Amino acid sequence: MSRVRVHNFSISLDGFGTGEGQSHDAPFGHAGARLHDWFFQTRTFHEMHGKPGGGTGLDDAMARAWGAGIGAEIMGRNKFGPQRGPWRDQEWTGWWGPNPPFHTPVFVLTHHPRPSVEMAGGTTFHFIDATPQEALRQAREAAGDLDVRIGGGVSTVRDFLAADLIDQLHLVVVPIVLGRGERLWDGLEGLEERFEAESVTTPSGVTHLTFTRA
Amino acid sequence: MSRVRVHNFSISLDGFGTGEGQSHDAPFGHAGARLHDWFFQTRTFHEMHGKPGGGTGLDDAMARAWGAGIGAEIMGRNKFGPQRGPWRDQEWTGWWGPNPPFHTPVFVLTHHPRPSVEMAGGTTFHFIDATPQEALRQAREAAGDLDVRIGGGVSTVRDFLAADLIDQLHLVVVPIVLGRGERLWDGLEGLEERFEAESVTTPSGVTHLTFTRA
Repeated sequence: MSRVRVHNFSISLDGFGTGEGQSHDAPFGHAGARLHDWFFQTRTFHEMHGKPGGGTGLDDAMARAWGAGIGAEIMGRNKFGPQRGPWRDQEWTGWWGPNPPFHTPVFVLTHHPRPSVEMAGGTTFHFIDATPQEALRQAREAAGDLDVRIGGGVSTVRDFLAADLIDQLHLVVVPIVLGRGERLWDGLEGLEERFEAESVTTPSGVTHLTFTRA
Repeated sequence: MSRVRVHNFSISLDGFGTGEGQSHDAPFGHAGARLHDWFFQTRTFHEMHGKPGGGTGLDDAMARAWGAGIGAEIMGRNKFGPQRGPWRDQEWTGWWGPNPPFHTPVFVLTHHPRPSVEMAGGTTFHFIDATPQEALRQAREAAGDLDVRIGGGVSTVRDFLAADLIDQLHLVVVPIVLGRGERLWDGLEGLEERFEAESVTTPSGVTHLTFTRA
């Protein structure tokens, strides 16, 4: 069976995967770019956005695993855009630009379904109101033999962890104390018992922590 | 001026420095030994307790820095023992046995002062009702030119961090999700701005994180 994977999911020392006050101009609220600075420096990120350069060290090697063998992504609505409630503006097709970096079907979890949106480069956004189990069923069907990535945000990753649907969880612990925002770990006591943990620190100062289903 | 240091302070991924339900037999509550397994394996720990053996790898090198150049320790009452309120049993001299591993003056913060207790091996427990600043003044006086260690528990370290009295903070992040207990990070948003951070992961699976005053 194909695996369910999380990649490049950054959290602060105090466990926040995003800060407070998400808006159009601040997808991670008061956290700003601090949770993802390590990622922005990688060649992987540069390539995803059609830019030259970028580092090729261990951070990049970890970041690069993001795309390999993925056939579909599931994301929470907040990762698509900052709108809440019924969709007022269906023209705006999300934070990801005309050619999103996913290049697969992407299932956006929302209580307000709308028609699918086909973007350039192979990304199609499907908007579904579904439990984690049902969303995964649809994503697996779309992914064929390939794996499904859970793309975040925080509550989406947490919901899939709580439902024990994740096989591989790659977290990046950034040495900052955010103080407020959305916590990854709430309600996940004893999570480590279902996984093997491996950690490695890189020169950028972050710690890559990989939980793999035991 | 002598420095103020924290060493070997273990926290879970979700930031808990101790679990819930501290008692005489469970100093760390439901966390049990999980936060300190890495430490119990070190030669440093074995030597502190007069036992042979123990690992000599990177965990041990980090653990060993605990004692060098320390002239006094400040600890919260909960690190001395589980009694609360007025001292009912002054015969019991704490969790640390007849020859405690400190070998220096130790200032125990409590709202219930009692006479000092001189133990074998150079440890003397002083019981003081004091602010972090005043406790540090007394500990510095006792330490002479040497450094002062803040020994924990969680709220003591947090109070000294909040008062910006700590120069070096060595944390050990253990890949477990405790879910409940006492959090280190509460109220410390932006703490990293006052420090340089360095991280290293060891084969035991923990990440040593050192914050040094910038």
